[in-house]
Amino acid sequence: MEFKPGRMFLFRVPEGEDLLEAISRFVESKGIKAGVVMGIGSLRNPVVGYYSEDEKRYKSIELSGTFELLSLNGNISLKEGKPFAHLHVTLGDDKGRVFGGHLIRGEVFVSEVYIGELVGEPLERKDMGNNLWLWEAER
Amino acid sequence: MEFKPGRMFLFRVPEGEDLLEAISRFVESKGIKAGVVMGIGSLRNPVVGYYSEDEKRYKSIELSGTFELLSLNGNISLKEGKPFAHLHVTLGDDKGRVFGGHLIRGEVFVSEVYIGELVGEPLERKDMGNNLWLWEAER
Amino acid sequence: MEFKPGRMFLFRVPEGEDLLEAISRFVESKGIKAGVVMGIGSLRNPVVGYYSEDEKRYKSIELSGTFELLSLNGNISLKEGKPFAHLHVTLGDDKGRVFGGHLIRGEVFVSEVYIGELVGEPLERKDMGNNLWLWEAER
Repeated sequence: MEFKPGRMFLFRVPEGEDLLEAISRFVESKGIKAGVVMGIGSLRNPVVGYYSEDEKRYKSIELSGTFELLSLNGNISLKEGKPFAHLHVTLGDDKGRVFGGHLIRGEVFVSEVYIGELVGEPLERKDMGNNLWLWEAER
Repeated sequence: MEFKPGRMFLFRVPEGEDLLEAISRFVESKGIKAGVVMGIGSLRNPVVGYYSEDEKRYKSIELSGTFELLSLNGNISLKEGKPFAHLHVTLGDDKGRVFGGHLIRGEVFVSEVYIGELVGEPLERKDMGNNLWLWEAER
Repeated sequence: MEFKPGRMFLFRVPEGEDLLEAISRFVESKGIKAGVVMGIGSLRNPVVGYYSEDEKRYKSIELSGTFELLSLNGNISLKEGKPFAHLHVTLGDDKGRVFGGHLIRGEVFVSEVYIGELVGEPLERKDMGNNLWLWEAER
């Protein structure tokens, strides 16, 4: 789907908040209905998901300790009429090893987040079954 | 090189398609000559490349199974006059371990892709030898 | 903080330069005071940092060899009145294994960098102690 540029935000999430909750609250409070998300920082005890095609559900992976947030990538669209953030992360440990998945949870130590709003027709997630909420596919 | 913002696209690639082919076809059909690409999702049996400075060529790394697409990053420019996508990926497995490289191939399970068009003078890749096609460097 | 879109740059850093120095010089020469940074490429002998909450300082992790630059993510803001780049990287080796951290140093083999300028009020880093320079947090 094609969009026009909207507002642009670059901000630091307060220490101690949950990153996904903080971004979700931010986009809801600003009324951002579609957009792209990028960020870097550092997270404590992140929990990431891996979607298993066999089991047709997300499996949780709990990481322990503080990790550099090497990449935060994702988007904002609508799910059941409300702004919804779908985010993936890569995380680095103190040896430089990298872990990651679908962001489920993670306490912010430092998080610098960019959100670029996209203005256009509503982009809605639909329940596709198997615990997947997706947009209509496009060619 | 300096650009102005063009069209912005956020879309889901159909399941079963090859991610690189789908993005290449999308940018060609839309006439996108320069841009940035970001995305997240999940890929089956991805193949990534590592450019060996010693051997002066890309080496293929084949991964088996379904991986979370943690980051898709890259750009669109011209190669031999046609839109060309240069993309790198990081990929997470069911233990949260991360792999990655230059995207050669990968079957889409889910892929949510953002393309931000850049409007300006043509940005052309040139054959630098050693299997490298690069833009002129800039300071 | 809210911004408007400014100039957009997509360019290749010359081989042999240090990536962080090259980006820092670029943003200073162009007068970019705020922005987002993305990129891909390949780096030689990168050095990345991990911020230790216990020791309250960055620890250096030295990597040896040439790595695919799988993701370069970060931002530009002001530190002591001058443009400052805060960048994180993920890096892939010849087996597809991934390492990463806060970018401290890395010699460019190939680096294709996007910078999207953000125009608005000054976004300033302040000395928070413990070797951290951060923006005011926002909800």
